[in-house]
Amino acid sequence: MAKLLDGIHAPGDFRRFTVSQLRQLAQEIRQDILDTTARQGGHVGASLGAVELVLALHYVYNTPEDKVIFDIGHQAYAHKIITGRRAEFPSIRQLGGLSGFLKRHESPYDVWEAGHAGTSLSGAVGLAVARQFTGADYRVAALIGDGALTAGMAWEALNQLGHLGTPMTVLVNDNSMSIAPNVGAFSRYLTELRTAPSYMRLKQDLDQALESLPLFGSRLRWTAERLKELAHAAILPDNVFEALGFKYYGPIDGHDLDGLIPVLRTARDADGPVVVHVITQKGKGYKPAEERPVQFHGPGPFERTSGEMIKKAEPPSYSLVFSRTLVELAKDRPDIVAITAAMPDGTKLDYFQSQYPDRFFDVGIAEQHAATFAAGLAMAGMRPVFAVYSTFLQRAYDQVIHDICHQNLPVLFGVDRAGLVGGDGATHQGVYDMAFLRTVPNLEIAMGKDESELRQLVAAALDRPGPVAVRYPRGAGRGLSLDEPFGTLEWGRAEWLRHGRDVTFIALGPMVYKAMEAAELLADQGIEAGVLNARFVKPLDGEALKQAVQESRALMTVEEHAVAGGFGAAVAEWVIAQGLSVPLRIEGLPDVFIDHGPTDYYLDLYGLSAEALSRKAVEWLERLSSEVQP
Amino acid sequence: MAKLLDGIHAPGDFRRFTVSQLRQLAQEIRQDILDTTARQGGHVGASLGAVELVLALHYVYNTPEDKVIFDIGHQAYAHKIITGRRAEFPSIRQLGGLSGFLKRHESPYDVWEAGHAGTSLSGAVGLAVARQFTGADYRVAALIGDGALTAGMAWEALNQLGHLGTPMTVLVNDNSMSIAPNVGAFSRYLTELRTAPSYMRLKQDLDQALESLPLFGSRLRWTAERLKELAHAAILPDNVFEALGFKYYGPIDGHDLDGLIPVLRTARDADGPVVVHVITQKGKGYKPAEERPVQFHGPGPFERTSGEMIKKAEPPSYSLVFSRTLVELAKDRPDIVAITAAMPDGTKLDYFQSQYPDRFFDVGIAEQHAATFAAGLAMAGMRPVFAVYSTFLQRAYDQVIHDICHQNLPVLFGVDRAGLVGGDGATHQGVYDMAFLRTVPNLEIAMGKDESELRQLVAAALDRPGPVAVRYPRGAGRGLSLDEPFGTLEWGRAEWLRHGRDVTFIALGPMVYKAMEAAELLADQGIEAGVLNARFVKPLDGEALKQAVQESRALMTVEEHAVAGGFGAAVAEWVIAQGLSVPLRIEGLPDVFIDHGPTDYYLDLYGLSAEALSRKAVEWLERLSSEVQP
Repeated sequence: MAKLLDGIHAPGDFRRFTVSQLRQLAQEIRQDILDTTARQGGHVGASLGAVELVLALHYVYNTPEDKVIFDIGHQAYAHKIITGRRAEFPSIRQLGGLSGFLKRHESPYDVWEAGHAGTSLSGAVGLAVARQFTGADYRVAALIGDGALTAGMAWEALNQLGHLGTPMTVLVNDNSMSIAPNVGAFSRYLTELRTAPSYMRLKQDLDQALESLPLFGSRLRWTAERLKELAHAAILPDNVFEALGFKYYGPIDGHDLDGLIPVLRTARDADGPVVVHVITQKGKGYKPAEERPVQFHGPGPFERTSGEMIKKAEPPSYSLVFSRTLVELAKDRPDIVAITAAMPDGTKLDYFQSQYPDRFFDVGIAEQHAATFAAGLAMAGMRPVFAVYSTFLQRAYDQVIHDICHQNLPVLFGVDRAGLVGGDGATHQGVYDMAFLRTVPNLEIAMGKDESELRQLVAAALDRPGPVAVRYPRGAGRGLSLDEPFGTLEWGRAEWLRHGRDVTFIALGPMVYKAMEAAELLADQGIEAGVLNARFVKPLDGEALKQAVQESRALMTVEEHAVAGGFGAAVAEWVIAQGLSVPLRIEGLPDVFIDHGPTDYYLDLYGLSAEALSRKAVEWLERLSSEVQP
Repeated sequence: MAKLLDGIHAPGDFRRFTVSQLRQLAQEIRQDILDTTARQGGHVGASLGAVELVLALHYVYNTPEDKVIFDIGHQAYAHKIITGRRAEFPSIRQLGGLSGFLKRHESPYDVWEAGHAGTSLSGAVGLAVARQFTGADYRVAALIGDGALTAGMAWEALNQLGHLGTPMTVLVNDNSMSIAPNVGAFSRYLTELRTAPSYMRLKQDLDQALESLPLFGSRLRWTAERLKELAHAAILPDNVFEALGFKYYGPIDGHDLDGLIPVLRTARDADGPVVVHVITQKGKGYKPAEERPVQFHGPGPFERTSGEMIKKAEPPSYSLVFSRTLVELAKDRPDIVAITAAMPDGTKLDYFQSQYPDRFFDVGIAEQHAATFAAGLAMAGMRPVFAVYSTFLQRAYDQVIHDICHQNLPVLFGVDRAGLVGGDGATHQGVYDMAFLRTVPNLEIAMGKDESELRQLVAAALDRPGPVAVRYPRGAGRGLSLDEPFGTLEWGRAEWLRHGRDVTFIALGPMVYKAMEAAELLADQGIEAGVLNARFVKPLDGEALKQAVQESRALMTVEEHAVAGGFGAAVAEWVIAQGLSVPLRIEGLPDVFIDHGPTDYYLDLYGLSAEALSRKAVEWLERLSSEVQP
């Protein structure tokens, strides 16, 4: 059967549609989204929830001349489908395929790229303010979720925009969820606003009633006048957005195109900043996603009819091992508390929460506060653990330096998704944290080669006197036993896995296993390669490094992290500080933003596979030999 | 004449004072503050403005058992004087003397250390929440300025605290100023709150009037009932703080101890979070500071009677040169706009503002937003320049990576106070930025050896296609001529200042002059030292580096930055990537937080003076010789 969607190659193709045609289009888009995401996973819930919103925006705004800014892009699947990318949509998040987020090189409709929440307002304010200089007269609308409004930078943007009074629409997409159910006082406040229509109507009714109130008797007259004043006053700071200088429209049903379109038109044409508060349902139109919104935030493949997840049988993830380890330790350690910034599911702290609900804190999308809150807890004698993706720790960088490390407080960072992250791509790669953390005094940094070492490192880190960052990668562990007693790992010591007089790989994290494979390959060629599992990035194990320098001709560091400032750079600094002279190579990731795609693909591409490492070692050793004996 | 203050060694010494005695104490404290700050400068305005506040807090709260958290500590001079540090107070901000901020090792009354604004609430929430685990029963009060409330992390903290409902007092010290007059919608809103008492009274009056309203006639009865509903509704979300779940007391005159003390007692004993909104005057009690609050935020020495600044005759500061250069260029470049995060005076962008008021944006203490706002402006074709202290750029790190560099937008960062900063000390040192910026793809990083090169670099940077960070130090330039035409500096090229076959100093920024001095000292000893002014940290000038490798036996990098991940590490990575073998040493700052004190003192201490550099070069060259010829 022919679909309306078949004729849609750009928003212009549906701008003359009737609302009932748009409604049909919405249903067709939902089917497209489900077809693809059921097969390969993706951000299902937010995308289904925002279909009408996306249609209405492109219907009302003259995109791409007008600028519609998405926050993150979890809601942007419908946007991709109706802006000429329907045919490629099944390639989303796959190597070489569409990005899961917006990408400016994909389409002129993708104005703003983002994978971290809360940036849309600031970017949009920039675009809006620029008009006064460039003379352009586009309109600007920025979407932001209610969850993202907990992010401090969104508050900072509202504060400036309300001050400037620049015309711009802020579309608050309120589904009472970010990734997990929302937390925080402002979320509760938004709920209050949702019940506000009766209050708004009440005020309008009152205004009319006051107009017709018979004024007899001076007391009654005085009261009536005060009442009018009050009614007037109550209209002024009616809600927080109005207090900040915005016109506020809402709440509006975000699935009701009849209601949505005229309000967006009004907002579009306003001469100042407007907040449109839209209520949507995550997963709308697909029952399993409506009923299980957390699971359907970003699932893998699922069975279309039942909505059951198609699970790969794989070992527990590093994240889960981290959380389970905390639970193990928390039994005898009443000082352990766990903190997440709106990622209880992603970090698997939800498991800790299930066991110790009172010792778990979800602060919302608020990494800055999470870190400094942890500092306060640590100061009071607690052992706070902040589990946070490497990429989101960037948000808390000043707090790491200024509040935690400068005060030398024993906060444990669980640096999750350290390394390449796969489908989320460039905005989420955890390949900078060693560079930005290594330069901070007082901070110790460690990474185990597998989940068993992660478990030991977590236990050991919680006995350290100061701040510690323990890194671990995304995805499944190696399926190792996790029953050993704690205390098998000596803090600060690297682990010798094999010795070799030709070259020693000094590897970090799971790259240790690649180095071991590479060493095997080299052994087949008669080259003796050692492997040192570094474990500690800061401070380095100087004794082990000295031994490596003594017993092999050359050192090759191996890390799944940017070369610039990373682990290898730390080893280089150490070699230089020791005044040693040893051939050293640094193998790591290049100085580019790395797109979405399988981790192994990129490790191969950038010469970090076992084969590539062994090949490079051979070539290098040959060159060293030729240099020494010309 | 004996002073009350002479008998005060701890807050317990005045907890039984009468309010009139406290008032006298306040005046005596002001004299102490002025005695010291007139002689040597300091944070005069905020400290004078908060004297009564500080006294009242220590009077009402049982410090140090109860926890009083200061934000930053600009207001903490009175606190230092009354907590046993009066005798040392004249040493404040001097080498080896008291810190200008709170320091935990100085006093048990210094609970929380901070030099960056907006951290007090998050830390205090941690201390407050910890009580439920530790069983401690201290009370918690956190001071925060109205300016710091524009910081996103303060919003994040309010959001969690309002949600948790943990008892704690948030004392909003509202002087309508942070460092400059406050900006932003929330600041305007606070002003509205200041006029609110009449509104509050109005509502109370109304409640009474409604109670006694004769209810005759069904229409009138209906109206009256609705009015009661409205009056009730209007009481609920009366202001933003109440909307977030706080009890709100205010506004209160922060210099009126009679009014302040009972409100603080009420807040202290509340069973949930409370905001006390206090109005103070910056510089209170010292007329010049009351009249010129911006100048008296953090002045140098001044003449006590007149309040005239005692100016050293010194060349224009790097900050001023940066701002003047922007003004020069802005004439022919209508795309240049300048952004500050509440530091128009410190960054000297106030000069740009005076020339181009419409092209200047102060976003408040909101570095995150400032960066992403700049990204939006750049996307629209503008050339935004964000002048920000190195230490505060830490707050915008995720935005630098995710919004600016990932989208490869031509934003120019003026990285001010790069290097050691003197009196502000450990929380303000600009010695990490190269490590955290260098690892970010697409970003170019440069630093001139003096203000003339800074000027050339700024002009050249504004023609680059992507993001650029130009670093420059705190303080006065060298007094060089600033009249050369632009374009004398080739982008990406280092500058050879002298050649030498024994060692080449590869120096960055003003350290180039130290290296030149060191080379002179070495020449006196018959050692030939070259000096390469690196200028570019990323990308490095590979050709110049190759030449250095070829023409001298050894390389020594010199930077006023942490060694870990810094400029020298970049050179080391380059040497390794090139497969070169050359003796290399990295001279820079050690892996510790460096306290307040003169820059030259620390350069000397850490071996970065010309003498130390030349001495180290001699020793090193001798060692190299002995290794080569055993």
